[in-house]
Amino acid sequence: MSSKPIGVFDSGVGGLTVSKEIMELLPHEAIVYLGDTARVPYGSKSPETITRYAFEGLKFLLSMNVKLVVIACNTVSATCLKELQNNSNVPVIGVIEPGARAAVRTTTSKKVGVIGTERTVKSKVYESAIKEIDSEIMILSKACPLFVPLIEEGWLDKEATYLTIAEYLMPLKKEGIDTLVLGCTHYPLLKPSIARVLGEEIKLVDCAKETARIVRETLESMGLLNQGDLPYEEKHKYYVTDNPEKFKEIGERFLNKKIEHIEKVRL
Amino acid sequence: MSSKPIGVFDSGVGGLTVSKEIMELLPHEAIVYLGDTARVPYGSKSPETITRYAFEGLKFLLSMNVKLVVIACNTVSATCLKELQNNSNVPVIGVIEPGARAAVRTTTSKKVGVIGTERTVKSKVYESAIKEIDSEIMILSKACPLFVPLIEEGWLDKEATYLTIAEYLMPLKKEGIDTLVLGCTHYPLLKPSIARVLGEEIKLVDCAKETARIVRETLESMGLLNQGDLPYEEKHKYYVTDNPEKFKEIGERFLNKKIEHIEKVRL
Repeated sequence: MSSKPIGVFDSGVGGLTVSKEIMELLPHEAIVYLGDTARVPYGSKSPETITRYAFEGLKFLLSMNVKLVVIACNTVSATCLKELQNNSNVPVIGVIEPGARAAVRTTTSKKVGVIGTERTVKSKVYESAIKEIDSEIMILSKACPLFVPLIEEGWLDKEATYLTIAEYLMPLKKEGIDTLVLGCTHYPLLKPSIARVLGEEIKLVDCAKETARIVRETLESMGLLNQGDLPYEEKHKYYVTDNPEKFKEIGERFLNKKIEHIEKVRL
Repeated sequence: MSSKPIGVFDSGVGGLTVSKEIMELLPHEAIVYLGDTARVPYGSKSPETITRYAFEGLKFLLSMNVKLVVIACNTVSATCLKELQNNSNVPVIGVIEPGARAAVRTTTSKKVGVIGTERTVKSKVYESAIKEIDSEIMILSKACPLFVPLIEEGWLDKEATYLTIAEYLMPLKKEGIDTLVLGCTHYPLLKPSIARVLGEEIKLVDCAKETARIVRETLESMGLLNQGDLPYEEKHKYYVTDNPEKFKEIGERFLNKKIEHIEKVRL
Protein backbone atom coordinates (compact mmCIF):
# COMPACT_ATOMS: atom_id res chain seq x y z
CA MET A 1 0.00 0.00 0.00
CA SER A 2 1.32 3.37 -1.03
CA SER A 3 -0.15 6.83 -1.31
CA LYS A 4 2.61 8.03 -3.62
CA PRO A 5 1.41 9.26 -7.01
CA ILE A 6 1.56 7.53 -10.37
CA GLY A 7 3.73 9.36 -12.92
CA VAL A 8 2.44 9.73 -16.48
CA PHE A 9 4.72 11.03 -19.23
CA ASP A 10 3.85 12.13 -22.74
CA SER A 11 5.26 14.50 -25.34
CA GLY A 12 2.09 16.55 -25.08
CA VAL A 13 -1.57 16.26 -24.27
CA GLY A 14 -2.27 12.81 -25.77
CA GLY A 15 -1.26 10.86 -22.66
CA LEU A 16 -4.26 12.34 -20.90
CA THR A 17 -6.39 9.61 -22.48
CA VAL A 18 -4.33 7.18 -20.39
CA SER A 19 -4.66 9.37 -17.28
CA LYS A 20 -8.42 9.44 -17.80
CA GLU A 21 -8.63 5.64 -17.92
CA ILE A 22 -6.42 5.34 -14.82
CA MET A 23 -8.65 7.82 -12.95
CA GLU A 24 -11.73 5.80 -13.87
CA LEU A 25 -10.22 2.43 -12.99
CA LEU A 26 -8.27 3.58 -9.90
CA PRO A 27 -10.17 6.53 -8.42
CA HIS A 28 -8.05 6.57 -5.26
CA GLU A 29 -4.75 7.13 -7.01
CA ALA A 30 -3.06 10.50 -7.50
CA ILE A 31 -1.41 11.26 -10.83
CA VAL A 32 1.57 13.49 -11.67
CA TYR A 33 1.39 14.22 -15.39
CA LEU A 34 4.27 15.59 -17.40
CA GLY A 35 3.67 16.85 -20.95
CA ASP A 36 6.75 18.01 -22.87
CA THR A 37 4.71 20.58 -24.77
CA ALA A 38 7.74 22.73 -25.63
CA ARG A 39 9.07 19.94 -27.83
CA VAL A 40 5.92 18.18 -29.02
CA PRO A 41 5.52 16.35 -31.39
CA TYR A 42 8.10 13.63 -30.90
CA GLY A 43 6.74 11.53 -33.80
CA SER A 44 8.86 13.26 -36.44
CA LYS A 45 12.08 13.40 -34.39
CA SER A 46 15.05 11.06 -34.51
CA PRO A 47 15.41 8.12 -32.07
CA GLU A 48 18.43 9.74 -30.36
CA THR A 49 16.53 12.97 -29.71
CA ILE A 50 13.43 11.13 -28.48
CA THR A 51 15.54 9.04 -26.10
CA ARG A 52 17.28 12.10 -24.72
CA TYR A 53 13.96 13.88 -24.10
CA ALA A 54 12.40 10.74 -22.55
CA PHE A 55 15.23 10.42 -20.03
CA GLU A 56 14.74 14.05 -19.01
CA GLY A 57 11.04 13.31 -18.49
CA LEU A 58 11.70 10.17 -16.49
CA LYS A 59 14.19 12.00 -14.27
CA PHE A 60 11.61 14.70 -13.56
CA LEU A 61 8.90 12.20 -12.61
CA LEU A 62 11.26 10.21 -10.38
CA SER A 63 12.15 13.46 -8.63
CA MET A 64 8.42 13.80 -7.83
CA ASN A 65 8.62 10.55 -5.87
CA VAL A 66 6.23 8.50 -8.01
CA LYS A 67 5.64 4.79 -7.35
CA LEU A 68 5.24 3.83 -11.01
CA VAL A 69 5.78 5.56 -14.35
CA VAL A 70 3.53 5.23 -17.38
CA ILE A 71 5.11 6.16 -20.70
CA ALA A 72 1.80 7.27 -22.17
CA CYS A 73 3.32 7.97 -25.56
CA ASN A 74 3.57 5.44 -28.35
CA THR A 75 6.55 7.15 -29.91
CA VAL A 76 8.61 6.98 -26.72
CA SER A 77 7.41 3.46 -25.88
CA ALA A 78 8.43 2.40 -29.38
CA THR A 79 11.81 4.05 -29.21
CA CYS A 80 13.39 3.49 -25.80
CA LEU A 81 11.11 1.75 -23.25
CA LYS A 82 13.70 -0.90 -22.37
CA GLU A 83 16.40 1.71 -21.67
CA LEU A 84 13.99 3.65 -19.46
CA GLN A 85 13.03 0.48 -17.55
CA ASN A 86 16.70 -0.38 -17.05
CA ASN A 87 17.35 3.04 -15.57
CA SER A 88 14.43 3.38 -13.18
CA ASN A 89 13.98 2.13 -9.61
CA VAL A 90 10.18 1.97 -10.05
CA PRO A 91 8.18 0.01 -12.67
CA VAL A 92 7.94 1.69 -16.07
CA ILE A 93 4.95 0.73 -18.22
CA GLY A 94 4.59 1.52 -21.92
CA VAL A 95 1.50 1.54 -24.11
CA ILE A 96 2.62 -0.91 -26.81
CA GLU A 97 2.60 -4.21 -24.91
CA PRO A 98 -0.93 -3.73 -23.47
CA GLY A 99 -2.30 -2.85 -26.93
CA ALA A 100 -0.53 -5.77 -28.57
CA ARG A 101 -1.91 -8.25 -26.03
CA ALA A 102 -5.45 -6.92 -26.49
CA ALA A 103 -5.12 -7.18 -30.28
CA VAL A 104 -4.11 -10.83 -30.05
CA ARG A 105 -7.09 -11.55 -27.75
CA THR A 106 -9.48 -9.77 -30.10
CA THR A 107 -8.68 -10.92 -33.64
CA THR A 108 -10.22 -14.04 -35.12
CA SER A 109 -9.28 -13.42 -38.77
CA LYS A 110 -5.65 -13.06 -37.67
CA LYS A 111 -5.37 -9.88 -39.74
CA VAL A 112 -4.73 -6.89 -37.51
CA GLY A 113 -4.41 -3.23 -38.53
CA VAL A 114 -2.13 -0.87 -36.61
CA ILE A 115 -2.30 2.92 -36.93
CA GLY A 116 -0.14 5.60 -35.32
CA THR A 117 2.37 8.33 -36.02
CA GLU A 118 5.00 7.90 -38.69
CA ARG A 119 7.67 7.00 -36.13
CA THR A 120 5.52 4.38 -34.36
CA VAL A 121 4.52 2.74 -37.62
CA LYS A 122 8.06 2.76 -39.05
CA SER A 123 9.45 1.26 -35.84
CA LYS A 124 7.21 -1.84 -36.30
CA VAL A 125 7.03 -2.29 -32.52
CA TYR A 126 3.40 -3.37 -32.57
CA GLU A 127 4.26 -5.87 -35.27
CA SER A 128 7.07 -7.32 -33.16
CA ALA A 129 5.03 -7.31 -29.95
CA ILE A 130 2.03 -9.00 -31.58
CA LYS A 131 4.09 -11.55 -33.50
CA GLU A 132 5.96 -12.46 -30.36
CA ILE A 133 2.65 -13.63 -28.87
CA ASP A 134 1.20 -15.14 -32.06
CA SER A 135 3.49 -15.34 -35.06
CA GLU A 136 0.61 -16.27 -37.39
CA ILE A 137 -1.06 -12.88 -37.16
CA MET A 138 -0.64 -10.68 -40.20
CA ILE A 139 -0.16 -6.96 -39.50
CA LEU A 140 -1.19 -4.15 -41.84
CA SER A 141 -0.02 -0.80 -40.63
CA LYS A 142 -0.65 2.79 -41.69
CA ALA A 143 0.73 6.10 -40.45
CA CYS A 144 -2.08 8.65 -40.00
CA PRO A 145 -0.31 11.98 -39.34
CA LEU A 146 -3.48 14.03 -39.85
CA PHE A 147 -5.41 12.46 -36.97
CA VAL A 148 -3.58 14.28 -34.16
CA PRO A 149 -4.12 17.78 -35.60
CA LEU A 150 -7.77 16.95 -36.38
CA ILE A 151 -8.29 15.82 -32.78
CA GLU A 152 -6.49 18.83 -31.29
CA GLU A 153 -8.62 21.08 -33.52
CA GLY A 154 -11.69 19.37 -32.04
CA TRP A 155 -12.91 18.24 -35.49
CA LEU A 156 -14.26 14.91 -34.28
CA ASP A 157 -17.51 15.00 -36.22
CA LYS A 158 -16.76 16.87 -39.46
CA GLU A 159 -17.16 15.66 -43.01
CA ALA A 160 -13.45 16.39 -43.68
CA THR A 161 -12.58 14.13 -40.73
CA TYR A 162 -14.69 11.22 -41.99
CA LEU A 163 -13.11 11.56 -45.44
CA THR A 164 -9.62 11.59 -43.90
CA ILE A 165 -10.42 8.47 -41.87
CA ALA A 166 -11.77 6.74 -44.97
CA GLU A 167 -8.73 7.71 -47.05
CA TYR A 168 -6.36 6.26 -44.46
CA LEU A 169 -8.33 3.24 -43.28
CA MET A 170 -10.60 1.86 -46.00
CA PRO A 171 -7.62 0.19 -47.72
CA LEU A 172 -6.95 -1.73 -44.46
CA LYS A 173 -10.60 -2.78 -44.27
CA LYS A 174 -10.47 -4.02 -47.88
CA GLU A 175 -7.46 -6.13 -46.94
CA GLY A 176 -9.65 -7.96 -44.43
CA ILE A 177 -8.56 -6.79 -40.97
CA ASP A 178 -11.05 -7.53 -38.16
CA THR A 179 -9.14 -5.62 -35.44
CA LEU A 180 -7.56 -2.17 -35.49
CA VAL A 181 -5.06 -1.04 -32.87
CA LEU A 182 -5.31 2.69 -32.16
CA GLY A 183 -1.56 3.04 -31.66
CA CYS A 184 -1.46 6.69 -30.60
CA THR A 185 -2.72 8.09 -27.33
CA HIS A 186 -4.72 10.80 -29.09
CA TYR A 187 -6.78 8.36 -31.09
CA PRO A 188 -9.30 7.26 -28.43
CA LEU A 189 -11.02 10.61 -28.98
CA LEU A 190 -11.58 9.67 -32.62
CA LYS A 191 -12.86 6.19 -31.75
CA PRO A 192 -16.57 6.88 -32.42
CA SER A 193 -15.75 8.51 -35.79
CA ILE A 194 -13.45 5.67 -36.83
CA ALA A 195 -16.10 3.14 -35.76
CA ARG A 196 -18.68 4.96 -37.90
CA VAL A 197 -16.46 4.81 -40.99
CA LEU A 198 -15.25 1.22 -40.56
CA GLY A 199 -18.46 -0.32 -39.23
CA GLU A 200 -19.13 -2.68 -36.34
CA GLU A 201 -17.36 -5.68 -37.83
CA ILE A 202 -13.96 -4.14 -37.09
CA LYS A 203 -13.04 -4.09 -33.41
CA LEU A 204 -11.01 -1.15 -32.14
CA VAL A 205 -8.27 -1.70 -29.56
CA ASP A 206 -7.89 1.28 -27.24
CA CYS A 207 -4.34 1.25 -25.83
CA ALA A 208 -5.21 3.80 -23.14
CA LYS A 209 -7.80 1.47 -21.58
CA GLU A 210 -5.50 -1.54 -21.86
CA THR A 211 -2.61 0.33 -20.28
CA ALA A 212 -4.74 1.42 -17.31
CA ARG A 213 -5.56 -2.24 -16.70
CA ILE A 214 -1.88 -3.17 -16.64
CA VAL A 215 -1.19 -0.31 -14.22
CA ARG A 216 -3.81 -1.75 -11.86
CA GLU A 217 -2.43 -5.29 -12.19
CA THR A 218 1.12 -4.12 -11.53
CA LEU A 219 0.25 -2.03 -8.46
CA GLU A 220 -1.95 -4.81 -7.12
CA SER A 221 0.73 -7.45 -7.53
CA MET A 222 3.28 -5.23 -5.81
CA GLY A 223 0.89 -4.25 -3.01
CA LEU A 224 1.19 -0.60 -3.97
CA LEU A 225 -2.43 0.41 -4.50
CA ASN A 226 -3.61 3.33 -2.43
CA GLN A 227 -6.27 2.58 0.15
CA GLY A 228 -8.75 5.22 -0.67
CA ASP A 229 -8.96 7.93 1.96
CA LEU A 230 -7.47 10.78 -0.08
CA PRO A 231 -9.52 13.57 -1.63
CA TYR A 232 -8.25 12.37 -4.98
CA GLU A 233 -9.76 15.10 -7.13
CA GLU A 234 -7.25 17.52 -5.66
CA LYS A 235 -4.34 15.18 -6.02
CA HIS A 236 -3.70 15.31 -9.76
CA LYS A 237 -0.89 17.61 -10.80
CA TYR A 238 0.03 18.64 -14.30
CA TYR A 239 3.43 19.87 -15.42
CA VAL A 240 4.17 21.11 -18.93
CA THR A 241 7.30 22.52 -20.54
CA ASP A 242 5.38 25.23 -22.41
CA ASN A 243 2.02 26.87 -22.94
CA PRO A 244 0.00 25.74 -19.90
CA GLU A 245 -3.03 27.72 -21.15
CA LYS A 246 -3.31 25.72 -24.35
CA PHE A 247 -2.66 22.45 -22.50
CA LYS A 248 -5.46 23.29 -20.07
CA GLU A 249 -7.87 24.14 -22.87
CA ILE A 250 -7.27 21.01 -24.95
CA GLY A 251 -6.58 18.83 -21.91
CA GLU A 252 -9.94 19.51 -20.30
CA ARG A 253 -11.61 18.28 -23.50
CA PHE A 254 -9.47 15.12 -23.33
CA LEU A 255 -10.18 14.45 -19.65
CA ASN A 256 -13.72 15.75 -19.67
CA LYS A 257 -12.96 17.40 -16.33
CA LYS A 258 -11.21 20.47 -14.94
CA ILE A 259 -7.43 20.74 -14.73
CA GLU A 260 -6.70 22.52 -11.46
CA HIS A 261 -2.99 22.32 -10.65
CA ILE A 262 -0.88 23.14 -13.68
CA GLU A 263 2.66 24.45 -13.73
CA LYS A 264 5.27 25.23 -16.36
CA VAL A 265 8.65 23.59 -15.78
CA ARG A 266 11.95 23.37 -17.62
CA LEU A 267 13.46 19.90 -17.97
CA MET B 1 28.66 43.63 -54.29
CA SER B 2 29.07 40.58 -52.08
CA SER B 3 29.30 36.86 -52.70
CA LYS B 4 28.37 36.06 -49.11
CA PRO B 5 25.27 33.91 -48.74
CA ILE B 6 21.76 34.95 -47.68
CA GLY B 7 20.61 33.33 -44.44
CA VAL B 8 17.08 31.94 -44.24
CA PHE B 9 15.63 30.81 -40.92
CA ASP B 10 12.46 28.86 -40.21
CA SER B 11 11.19 26.52 -37.52
CA GLY B 12 11.00 23.78 -40.13
CA VAL B 13 10.53 23.20 -43.81
CA GLY B 14 8.02 25.98 -44.56
CA GLY B 15 10.61 28.70 -45.13
CA LEU B 16 11.70 26.81 -48.24
CA THR B 17 8.85 28.52 -50.11
CA VAL B 18 10.72 31.77 -49.46
CA SER B 19 14.06 30.20 -50.48
CA LYS B 20 12.41 29.02 -53.71
CA GLU B 21 11.21 32.52 -54.57
CA ILE B 22 14.65 34.00 -53.75
CA MET B 23 16.33 31.41 -55.98
CA GLU B 24 13.99 32.31 -58.85
CA LEU B 25 14.34 36.05 -58.41
CA LEU B 26 18.07 36.08 -57.56
CA PRO B 27 19.64 33.07 -59.26
CA HIS B 28 23.19 34.21 -58.50
CA GLU B 29 22.77 34.25 -54.74
CA ALA B 30 23.76 31.43 -52.40
CA ILE B 31 21.44 30.53 -49.51
CA VAL B 32 22.21 29.09 -46.10
CA TYR B 33 18.98 27.63 -44.76
CA LEU B 34 18.41 26.75 -41.13
CA GLY B 35 15.34 24.71 -40.14
CA ASP B 36 14.87 24.09 -36.42
CA THR B 37 13.22 20.73 -37.09
CA ALA B 38 13.94 19.37 -33.61
CA ARG B 39 11.58 21.94 -32.12
CA VAL B 40 9.05 22.51 -34.89
CA PRO B 41 6.26 23.67 -34.74
CA TYR B 42 6.77 27.03 -33.07
CA GLY B 43 3.13 28.07 -33.63
CA SER B 44 1.88 26.51 -30.42
CA LYS B 45 4.78 27.65 -28.21
CA SER B 46 4.93 30.65 -25.89
CA PRO B 47 6.45 33.99 -27.01
CA GLU B 48 9.39 33.60 -24.58
CA THR B 49 10.28 30.17 -25.93
CA ILE B 50 9.93 31.30 -29.56
CA THR B 51 12.17 34.30 -28.89
CA ARG B 52 14.82 32.14 -27.24
CA TYR B 53 14.84 29.69 -30.18
CA ALA B 54 14.91 32.51 -32.75
CA PHE B 55 17.98 34.07 -31.16
CA GLU B 56 19.75 30.72 -31.29
CA GLY B 57 18.88 30.50 -34.99
CA LEU B 58 20.06 34.04 -35.71
CA LYS B 59 23.33 33.41 -33.92
CA PHE B 60 23.93 30.30 -36.00
CA LEU B 61 23.28 32.10 -39.30
CA LEU B 62 25.49 35.05 -38.34
CA SER B 63 28.25 32.57 -37.56
CA MET B 64 27.92 31.38 -41.19
CA ASN B 65 28.87 34.86 -42.34
CA VAL B 66 25.62 35.75 -44.12
CA LYS B 67 25.02 39.22 -45.59
CA LEU B 68 21.29 39.31 -44.79
CA VAL B 69 18.90 37.20 -42.75
CA VAL B 70 15.34 36.32 -43.76
CA ILE B 71 13.09 35.23 -40.93
CA ALA B 72 11.01 33.00 -43.19
CA CYS B 73 8.59 32.11 -40.44
CA ASN B 74 5.43 34.02 -39.66
CA THR B 75 5.40 32.92 -36.05
CA VAL B 76 8.90 34.25 -35.38
CA SER B 77 8.33 37.39 -37.45
CA ALA B 78 5.16 37.99 -35.45
CA THR B 79 6.82 37.41 -32.11
CA CYS B 80 10.26 39.02 -32.03
CA LEU B 81 11.39 40.53 -35.36
CA LYS B 82 12.28 43.89 -33.80
CA GLU B 83 14.48 42.29 -31.14
CA LEU B 84 16.27 40.23 -33.77
CA GLN B 85 16.83 43.34 -35.93
CA ASN B 86 18.19 45.23 -32.93
CA ASN B 87 20.70 42.48 -32.25
CA SER B 88 22.06 41.83 -35.72
CA ASN B 89 24.82 43.57 -37.67
CA VAL B 90 23.20 42.60 -41.01
CA PRO B 91 19.66 43.40 -42.23
CA VAL B 92 16.94 41.10 -40.88
CA ILE B 93 13.79 40.79 -43.01
CA GLY B 94 10.54 39.24 -41.84
CA VAL B 95 7.59 37.95 -43.84
CA ILE B 96 4.81 40.04 -42.29
CA GLU B 97 5.62 43.49 -43.62
CA PRO B 98 5.97 42.37 -47.29
CA GLY B 99 2.65 40.51 -47.09
CA ALA B 100 0.90 43.44 -45.43
CA ARG B 101 2.10 45.89 -48.09
CA ALA B 102 0.94 43.59 -50.90
CA ALA B 103 -2.47 43.18 -49.26
CA VAL B 104 -2.96 46.96 -49.10
CA ARG B 105 -1.98 47.27 -52.80
CA THR B 106 -4.37 44.48 -53.78
CA THR B 107 -7.65 45.10 -51.97
CA THR B 108 -10.34 47.34 -53.41
CA SER B 109 -13.22 46.32 -51.11
CA LYS B 110 -10.97 47.16 -48.13
CA LYS B 111 -11.90 43.86 -46.55
CA VAL B 112 -8.84 41.62 -46.21
CA GLY B 113 -8.68 38.09 -44.87
CA VAL B 114 -5.57 36.85 -43.03
CA ILE B 115 -4.87 33.16 -42.35
CA GLY B 116 -2.02 31.54 -40.48
CA THR B 117 -1.11 29.51 -37.41
CA GLU B 118 -2.86 30.10 -34.11
CA ARG B 119 0.06 32.16 -32.79
CA THR B 120 0.28 34.39 -35.88
CA VAL B 121 -3.45 35.06 -35.91
CA LYS B 122 -3.64 35.71 -32.16
CA SER B 123 -0.71 38.12 -32.35
CA LYS B 124 -2.66 40.35 -34.80
CA VAL B 125 0.60 41.43 -36.44
CA TYR B 126 -0.88 41.47 -39.93
CA GLU B 127 -3.76 43.53 -38.62
CA SER B 128 -1.35 46.08 -37.11
CA ALA B 129 0.94 46.13 -40.15
CA ILE B 130 -1.96 46.59 -42.60
CA LYS B 131 -3.76 49.19 -40.50
CA GLU B 132 -0.57 51.16 -40.11
CA ILE B 133 -0.56 51.66 -43.90
CA ASP B 134 -4.33 52.07 -44.32
CA SER B 135 -6.39 52.32 -41.19
CA GLU B 136 -9.67 51.97 -43.12
CA ILE B 137 -9.03 48.36 -44.11
CA MET B 138 -11.07 45.82 -42.19
CA ILE B 139 -9.27 42.57 -41.30
CA LEU B 140 -10.95 39.19 -40.88
CA SER B 141 -8.56 36.58 -39.60
CA LYS B 142 -8.73 32.83 -39.12
CA ALA B 143 -6.26 30.32 -37.70
CA CYS B 144 -6.02 27.24 -39.93
CA PRO B 145 -3.95 24.72 -37.93
CA LEU B 146 -4.83 21.81 -40.24
CA PHE B 147 -3.25 23.31 -43.35
CA VAL B 148 0.37 22.62 -42.37
CA PRO B 149 -0.13 18.91 -41.67
CA LEU B 150 -2.21 18.54 -44.86
CA ILE B 151 0.60 20.15 -46.88
CA GLU B 152 3.33 18.09 -45.22
CA GLU B 153 1.28 14.95 -45.91
CA GLY B 154 1.18 16.00 -49.58
CA TRP B 155 -2.64 16.09 -49.63
CA LEU B 156 -2.90 19.10 -51.94
CA ASP B 157 -5.64 17.75 -54.18
CA LYS B 158 -7.82 15.55 -51.94
CA GLU B 159 -11.51 15.94 -51.23
CA ALA B 160 -10.77 16.13 -47.47
CA THR B 161 -8.44 19.06 -48.19
CA TYR B 162 -11.04 20.99 -50.19
CA LEU B 163 -13.58 20.44 -47.41
CA THR B 164 -11.10 21.65 -44.81
CA ILE B 165 -10.37 24.76 -46.87
CA ALA B 166 -14.08 25.44 -47.30
CA GLU B 167 -14.76 24.94 -43.58
CA TYR B 168 -12.08 27.46 -42.64
CA LEU B 169 -12.44 30.00 -45.46
CA MET B 170 -16.00 30.16 -46.78
CA PRO B 171 -17.09 32.23 -43.75
CA LEU B 172 -14.44 34.83 -44.71
CA LYS B 173 -15.72 34.87 -48.30
CA LYS B 174 -19.29 35.37 -47.07
CA GLU B 175 -18.07 38.36 -45.08
CA GLY B 176 -16.96 39.98 -48.34
CA ILE B 177 -13.15 39.83 -48.39
CA ASP B 178 -11.57 40.39 -51.83
CA THR B 179 -7.98 39.63 -50.73
CA LEU B 180 -6.59 36.81 -48.63
CA VAL B 181 -3.12 36.93 -47.10
CA LEU B 182 -1.53 33.47 -46.88
CA GLY B 183 0.18 34.26 -43.59
CA CYS B 184 2.19 31.05 -43.19
CA THR B 185 5.16 30.02 -45.28
CA HIS B 186 3.68 26.58 -45.93
CA TYR B 187 0.55 27.94 -47.54
CA PRO B 188 1.90 28.79 -51.04
CA LEU B 189 1.77 25.05 -51.76
CA LEU B 190 -1.96 25.10 -51.10
CA LYS B 191 -2.54 28.19 -53.25
CA PRO B 192 -4.11 26.39 -56.24
CA SER B 193 -6.46 24.43 -53.96
CA ILE B 194 -7.47 27.55 -52.02
CA ALA B 195 -8.03 29.41 -55.30
CA ARG B 196 -10.26 26.59 -56.53
CA VAL B 197 -12.43 26.75 -53.40
CA LEU B 198 -12.66 30.54 -53.12
CA GLY B 199 -12.86 31.36 -56.85
CA GLU B 200 -11.08 33.97 -58.94
CA GLU B 201 -12.72 36.99 -57.35
CA ILE B 202 -10.57 36.60 -54.22
CA LYS B 203 -6.92 37.54 -54.74
CA LEU B 204 -4.33 35.54 -52.80
CA VAL B 205 -1.28 37.32 -51.36
CA ASP B 206 1.76 35.04 -51.30
CA CYS B 207 4.13 36.31 -48.59
CA ALA B 208 7.01 34.17 -49.88
CA LYS B 209 6.97 35.97 -53.26
CA GLU B 210 6.62 39.38 -51.63
CA THR B 211 9.47 38.71 -49.21
CA ALA B 212 11.82 37.67 -52.03
CA ARG B 213 11.11 41.02 -53.71
CA ILE B 214 12.05 42.90 -50.54
CA VAL B 215 15.26 40.86 -50.26
CA ARG B 216 16.20 41.96 -53.78
CA GLU B 217 15.36 45.60 -53.06
CA THR B 218 17.38 45.59 -49.86
CA LEU B 219 20.48 43.97 -51.36
CA GLU B 220 20.26 46.26 -54.37
CA SER B 221 20.00 49.38 -52.29
CA MET B 222 22.98 48.33 -50.18
CA GLY B 223 25.05 47.31 -53.22
CA LEU B 224 25.25 43.76 -51.88
CA LEU B 225 23.94 41.72 -54.82
CA ASN B 226 26.25 39.02 -56.09
CA GLN B 227 27.57 39.51 -59.62
CA GLY B 228 26.77 36.16 -61.05
CA ASP B 229 29.83 34.04 -61.75
CA LEU B 230 29.23 31.39 -59.08
CA PRO B 231 27.98 27.88 -59.84
CA TYR B 232 24.97 28.72 -57.72
CA GLU B 233 23.28 25.32 -57.76
CA GLU B 234 26.04 24.01 -55.55
CA LYS B 235 25.98 26.96 -53.23
CA HIS B 236 22.83 26.29 -51.24
CA LYS B 237 23.39 24.69 -47.89
CA TYR B 238 20.76 23.30 -45.56
CA TYR B 239 21.11 22.84 -41.81
CA VAL B 240 18.50 21.21 -39.61
CA THR B 241 18.39 20.42 -35.91
CA ASP B 242 16.86 16.97 -36.46
CA ASN B 243 15.77 14.41 -39.02
CA PRO B 244 17.60 15.52 -42.19
CA GLU B 245 16.05 12.59 -44.13
CA LYS B 246 12.52 13.80 -43.58
CA PHE B 247 13.50 17.40 -44.29
CA LYS B 248 15.06 16.32 -47.57
CA GLU B 249 12.01 14.31 -48.58
CA ILE B 250 9.44 17.04 -47.85
CA GLY B 251 11.83 19.86 -48.76
CA GLU B 252 12.44 18.62 -52.28
CA ARG B 253 8.68 18.72 -52.86
CA PHE B 254 8.63 22.32 -51.57
CA LEU B 255 11.57 23.46 -53.70
CA ASN B 256 10.82 21.28 -56.67
CA LYS B 257 14.54 20.56 -56.87
CA LYS B 258 17.19 18.40 -55.22
CA ILE B 259 18.63 19.21 -51.80
CA GLU B 260 22.32 18.35 -52.00
CA HIS B 261 24.15 19.70 -48.95
CA ILE B 262 22.27 18.94 -45.77
CA GLU B 263 23.68 18.64 -42.30
CA LYS B 264 22.32 18.11 -38.80
CA VAL B 265 23.45 20.69 -36.23
CA ARG B 266 22.75 21.44 -32.60
CA LEU B 267 21.93 25.05 -31.72
